[in-house]
Amino acid sequence: MSFRKKKGKQTIIFHKPPVIKSWASIVGPKEGEGPWGKYFDKVLPDYLDGQTSWELTETKMLRDAVTMTLEKQAINKDDVDVFLAGDLLNQIISANYAARELAIPFLGLYGACSTMAESMILGAILIDGYFYDQVVAAACSHHYTAQRQFRFPSEQGVQFAPSSQWTATAAGAVLLYNDMSPGIKVTCATVGRVIDKAQKDPNNMGAAMAPAAVDTIKTHFTDLGRTPDYYDLIITGDLGEVGYELAKELFIKEGLPPMENFNDCGVLLFSKKQSDINAGASGCGCSAAMLCGPLLRKMFSEELKKILFVPTGALMSPISTFQGESIPAIAHAVAIELL
Amino acid sequence: MSFRKKKGKQTIIFHKPPVIKSWASIVGPKEGEGPWGKYFDKVLPDYLDGQTSWELTETKMLRDAVTMTLEKQAINKDDVDVFLAGDLLNQIISANYAARELAIPFLGLYGACSTMAESMILGAILIDGYFYDQVVAAACSHHYTAQRQFRFPSEQGVQFAPSSQWTATAAGAVLLYNDMSPGIKVTCATVGRVIDKAQKDPNNMGAAMAPAAVDTIKTHFTDLGRTPDYYDLIITGDLGEVGYELAKELFIKEGLPPMENFNDCGVLLFSKKQSDINAGASGCGCSAAMLCGPLLRKMFSEELKKILFVPTGALMSPISTFQGESIPAIAHAVAIELL
Repeated sequence: MSFRKKKGKQTIIFHKPPVIKSWASIVGPKEGEGPWGKYFDKVLPDYLDGQTSWELTETKMLRDAVTMTLEKQAINKDDVDVFLAGDLLNQIISANYAARELAIPFLGLYGACSTMAESMILGAILIDGYFYDQVVAAACSHHYTAQRQFRFPSEQGVQFAPSSQWTATAAGAVLLYNDMSPGIKVTCATVGRVIDKAQKDPNNMGAAMAPAAVDTIKTHFTDLGRTPDYYDLIITGDLGEVGYELAKELFIKEGLPPMENFNDCGVLLFSKKQSDINAGASGCGCSAAMLCGPLLRKMFSEELKKILFVPTGALMSPISTFQGESIPAIAHAVAIELL
Repeated sequence: MSFRKKKGKQTIIFHKPPVIKSWASIVGPKEGEGPWGKYFDKVLPDYLDGQTSWELTETKMLRDAVTMTLEKQAINKDDVDVFLAGDLLNQIISANYAARELAIPFLGLYGACSTMAESMILGAILIDGYFYDQVVAAACSHHYTAQRQFRFPSEQGVQFAPSSQWTATAAGAVLLYNDMSPGIKVTCATVGRVIDKAQKDPNNMGAAMAPAAVDTIKTHFTDLGRTPDYYDLIITGDLGEVGYELAKELFIKEGLPPMENFNDCGVLLFSKKQSDINAGASGCGCSAAMLCGPLLRKMFSEELKKILFVPTGALMSPISTFQGESIPAIAHAVAIELL
């Protein structure tokens, strides 16, 4: 009988919570100009960063975020047991090509913008279950690779909808480590279900993702008998302004108490004064870089002691949208605590 | 310290090997006409099976394979702890939309044609590590969705290269179960690294994947101190004829003893008399259906007692190929034994 999750529940409780021993984030120029610029390890000088295509730049960002994470603790990449990562590109090529160069045993993931949570949950499971000792979990996205794959080539100059979100150029990586000494730890996690409320507008992914975020967060509290005030911060992936407001309404509908401590990476990443942002940021890299930049730094300085990190993913594709399908979404919750 | 994997090794040894309690496979008409037709649970009457698009058919195949797997043991889907699955389509829409309808907590994977191994390894980890009790692992592919996404619309009538493989229309699912009683069990697993020998021809994926298969299989034997004759059958995912012959050469080069018990799902799925097969079968569904059809049936009847199942994945995308990248590949090995 499993003892890390009760029957009928979705939340896993780690018995020997893995420590987040190291982390790193890299962002694009626009993200660097935003309110959190100084919290990221590296801001790219431009969107190519010396590469010949945006796709190569995205792969390099992911690989560099992993390398920086390991260098900070003088860890040799050959000592890492497994690399768990994903991105938004077709066939997750950024993660695949980064894994080729890192040469670490690799498990590729696709959870759209929820990928950072998925990689961290599986990483924590691998350590807590006594399978591995050192795991790297990571995710990335690039504005211009996403634009040409999901929307229109940027050169076409199509106008954004007010509810649309700006895909972040960003990567984040963490090193999860088997260590019983005090530190920033992954203490429990709620694996989400796919939720679809029949929203069909791909320019309003926040509205599609909000119900999934609310379902996972409510399940997390119910499973553990916790109230939202247990955490200093409950932060969703990238609902953006529209999804964030909708999530707040849904929390009330679902009978949850008011949450002053609820925020969203998509709302926070950019300043409202920045151009073309519309409803905020999105992309796997948005929540990954917010975690591996400002959030973990604030935990390290003890400004934040307990956070619930809830990246959200919209699970459609251009072809499913074209074929008239609605947008399914998912959210996974990761509890991170200073212990 | 992890005790399910030794430091510096890639192979996990399960302490409480999860049982494959149930399984099901569904294939398309062409696969049904092949030599293993009678071993599959269902052969589709045509490539649409009552749906309005091939993409919807692919999703339905995956969902139906899961439902059949659960029905065989009268398991309620609400009692399944997690669903692990992936496919070849952009943003793994077949798995996402199947997960929406199944409403089981979901972790999406992308390992190209290695996905069935990835899902089974993570599923076995979740059970052996005392996280979950019942996990469904699955993968699927559809010939016509893959053709229009990766190659040319079938209507265009482009001729296949002799080294090209026919993407299988097939789905397979297993129910992994926390059960100490005798049965067909997942006993150990080797997580592969991404290997790239600079092969650039997307019409010859077998040649790109063979080095990855050989690397993982050799590592498996080295890690465990086993020789190939430990297994009744060592079966790779979908190298096809070209990759299979190359793998045999590479085994000799790597100093492994001759393996009479080595075969390949891509070589086996179709008969050589069938039209347009060229070098054999490919697709996530090829190895998934071969496992969840003939192979597990032969283990159930005790014709096979120990197999090493090694699905292989080519990790490129049309855009990476277009940009001149070579094809990285991966293979994961899953040891399945009658205990």
